[in-house]
Amino acid sequence: MASQSVLTPQAEDFPRWYQDVVAKAEMADNGPVRGTMVIRPYGYAIWERIQAEIDARIKQAGAQNAYFPLFIPQSYLSKEAEHVEGFSPELAVVTHAGGEELAEPIVVRPTSETVIGEFMAKWIQSYRDLPLLLNQWANVVRWELRPRLFLRSSEFLWQEGHTAHATYEDAAAYAMKIHLEVYNDFLNEVLAVPTFLGIKPPRERFAGAINTMTCEGMMRDGKALQMATSHELGQNFAKAFDIYYQSEEGQAALCHTTSWGSSTRLVGGLIMAHGDDRGLVVPPRLAPIQVVIIAVRDEPTVNEACERILASLKSAGVRAVLDRGRGSFGRRLTDWEIKGIPLRVEVGPRDLAEGVVTVVRRDTAEKITLELEAVAPRAPALLETMQAELLQGARDRRDANTCDVPSVVKAIDVAQTGFARLSWDLVGDSEEAEMNSQAVTIRCLVRADGSIPASDLEEDLLCIVAKSY
Amino acid sequence: MASQSVLTPQAEDFPRWYQDVVAKAEMADNGPVRGTMVIRPYGYAIWERIQAEIDARIKQAGAQNAYFPLFIPQSYLSKEAEHVEGFSPELAVVTHAGGEELAEPIVVRPTSETVIGEFMAKWIQSYRDLPLLLNQWANVVRWELRPRLFLRSSEFLWQEGHTAHATYEDAAAYAMKIHLEVYNDFLNEVLAVPTFLGIKPPRERFAGAINTMTCEGMMRDGKALQMATSHELGQNFAKAFDIYYQSEEGQAALCHTTSWGSSTRLVGGLIMAHGDDRGLVVPPRLAPIQVVIIAVRDEPTVNEACERILASLKSAGVRAVLDRGRGSFGRRLTDWEIKGIPLRVEVGPRDLAEGVVTVVRRDTAEKITLELEAVAPRAPALLETMQAELLQGARDRRDANTCDVPSVVKAIDVAQTGFARLSWDLVGDSEEAEMNSQAVTIRCLVRADGSIPASDLEEDLLCIVAKSY
Repeated sequence: MASQSVLTPQAEDFPRWYQDVVAKAEMADNGPVRGTMVIRPYGYAIWERIQAEIDARIKQAGAQNAYFPLFIPQSYLSKEAEHVEGFSPELAVVTHAGGEELAEPIVVRPTSETVIGEFMAKWIQSYRDLPLLLNQWANVVRWELRPRLFLRSSEFLWQEGHTAHATYEDAAAYAMKIHLEVYNDFLNEVLAVPTFLGIKPPRERFAGAINTMTCEGMMRDGKALQMATSHELGQNFAKAFDIYYQSEEGQAALCHTTSWGSSTRLVGGLIMAHGDDRGLVVPPRLAPIQVVIIAVRDEPTVNEACERILASLKSAGVRAVLDRGRGSFGRRLTDWEIKGIPLRVEVGPRDLAEGVVTVVRRDTAEKITLELEAVAPRAPALLETMQAELLQGARDRRDANTCDVPSVVKAIDVAQTGFARLSWDLVGDSEEAEMNSQAVTIRCLVRADGSIPASDLEEDLLCIVAKSY
Repeated sequence: MASQSVLTPQAEDFPRWYQDVVAKAEMADNGPVRGTMVIRPYGYAIWERIQAEIDARIKQAGAQNAYFPLFIPQSYLSKEAEHVEGFSPELAVVTHAGGEELAEPIVVRPTSETVIGEFMAKWIQSYRDLPLLLNQWANVVRWELRPRLFLRSSEFLWQEGHTAHATYEDAAAYAMKIHLEVYNDFLNEVLAVPTFLGIKPPRERFAGAINTMTCEGMMRDGKALQMATSHELGQNFAKAFDIYYQSEEGQAALCHTTSWGSSTRLVGGLIMAHGDDRGLVVPPRLAPIQVVIIAVRDEPTVNEACERILASLKSAGVRAVLDRGRGSFGRRLTDWEIKGIPLRVEVGPRDLAEGVVTVVRRDTAEKITLELEAVAPRAPALLETMQAELLQGARDRRDANTCDVPSVVKAIDVAQTGFARLSWDLVGDSEEAEMNSQAVTIRCLVRADGSIPASDLEEDLLCIVAKSY
């Protein structure tokens, strides 16, 4: 088949396979400024679906969207010293505007947290204003020396949530709610990527956080991708930005805040978690195109049958498109395979003579012969089956490639092709340095039963270690 | 009533009324960098609704969303000289990134057109790739010396459409389709702002355009606001960016392109087209909150009735919220009025004893007494009636404040409080200079029957002149 020569096989060179898929599936291109990206219509349609699904969950969790400015006065980034250190080499700085040099340079936001902190302080007066639950969808800039489309780009699209609460308990519960009901639910139910849910060890925490929760997914090469993080900031952030409220008793009290984010990295995660040697595999619930109807040839009877199937699929609420029979059938089929459309319906004159068409699943290549009229009624169930099997398949791969090991040496060995799980007590400073020297890192700390620890001070924690993106 | 003292009356000082509404309705704040804005949750919810309605129409018209980078090499802006002249003093320039000075300065996009032009040239090979119909939702930056929230800000949010076609006719027809089916349909059917549809006179055209169509709305002070524009770029843009295609006959041919845009200015237009001395009036089809249920007091029977109404409204597909009875009823009522929620349902213990509640329309202040169970069934029709009457009211105001005049002197006079319409033949260079010296400009050229001229070379054109935002 033609498709075999289009992409570098995963086993041969996974990073090149990734680059090939991004280009051939028409997901993205490099922008003219190094490290920036052009997200092409198909890539952007996938991002729009990710955004819609995450946004609905964020709203369900009670947060409201707002928009803060792209530009931040440079002085703001010294308000919280820890952040300056974190971002300084990553900043893009505007020195000229309006045809002249600016008195104070302006930074292009690496996040909006400093501005959001300032406005939270302004908007929050009393306990009645709490909790204040804000989210923003925006572009941010962090200069990248080794850019990679979707995974690491100097400009990327993301959402950042920032919330303020009256008590530690309320803040911690909300961060957990976002982590489970927004991120983990989306990752499992829509992206079909099972995760390890845990907390970051202290030195991997977000600057200023007292606790950072992460969702770590396994890619098809056995490496980890951090899919989303949620931070408990305690009162550190509120202290830096003077976010006080007047309590019911009339006392001034510091707020407890959280922040949480996910980005266009998720598109990279989608590609690497499900893709195979024939290209992308997009989970049906996420897919902007769930079914492509392919006319084998450009003939009136074929076209008419295709149009009927298209109309019936659309009435059934299925996101379907029609590929009219122009150009080589084989080439078109390969192109749709690379784009990972969950189901394709092949409509050819010979099948039509018998009143049937062929439905093919992208993930299993399973072929089903269906009567024309049966396509639309059957499609939703087929899509749901595929969704469930993709998640199960990813779970099986993750479990098969996660090993409990008794030592750091073994962990490094296992991390060449998957995840290792071991007692965190075994990982002292020198052991961690040894792992890191081999590009193996602690992805997260988990409890023995797999649940999320409340703190890294709990006893008997396990750690998941792996190579990562 | 308390509400009377909250806002500066429109008749006293319209610009101050505008500022007051933006602040008191919690729409937006000034950002820390001059000219930037913070769009607060309620303002952003309105923008999200505008975006959703326009986006659905853009997709219906066949265009696809994509995303192009925030950063543009400075050299790109010299590719099309006309544009540099148009933007140069407006540009924000990044000179430092990654901790060092950049070899070539980078411009923060004032539009993405140069980058989109480059990629169109790359993506378009043959006539089969045409038309290429792209749209982008993004932030852009144009330095503003006299910023005004939503109306003129250094950073604003917008959509810019860019399309390439094989023929002049196809390009012109598509620009017209966008203008009528996307912009004008949205403005009339959702924003309830009737428009004058026409073309810009040559000197007001977008740089490089061969024809610019505009939708001009009338604000409540009689000034005009340009709500959206669509440009036919002929082959000028394609020539500047080498956008060629191979025709069916195998010849290289230049494309014909269009561009079209609308922005967060529309939020300013919404405020000024419908607002009154009590605040915003949001058309029901646009409103993120269509109905607010206000508990007069915080009592169990009241709360229970409110919850029942809320649930029934939501089941009826109405966007409703509940204001539990905490704090002063009068203050809460004023706040919801300022926010312009189309319908409020007042639920008080005395009415409840008789099984009824009071429904109040925001625009007319008309009060209707309804049985509890009747609220949800009646609400959709009440909302639709209000939508229709808002549009009709705006039409009536526009017509009452648009005068046909026989001379430029008269036109200047009429433009102090409304729109003047006169023969374009009467407006020579010196007459136009005279008008402009009094801040009166030609908003658009129209045919005598009100339809959109195909070109400014048509005979017997009329022009609409007004002061404007």
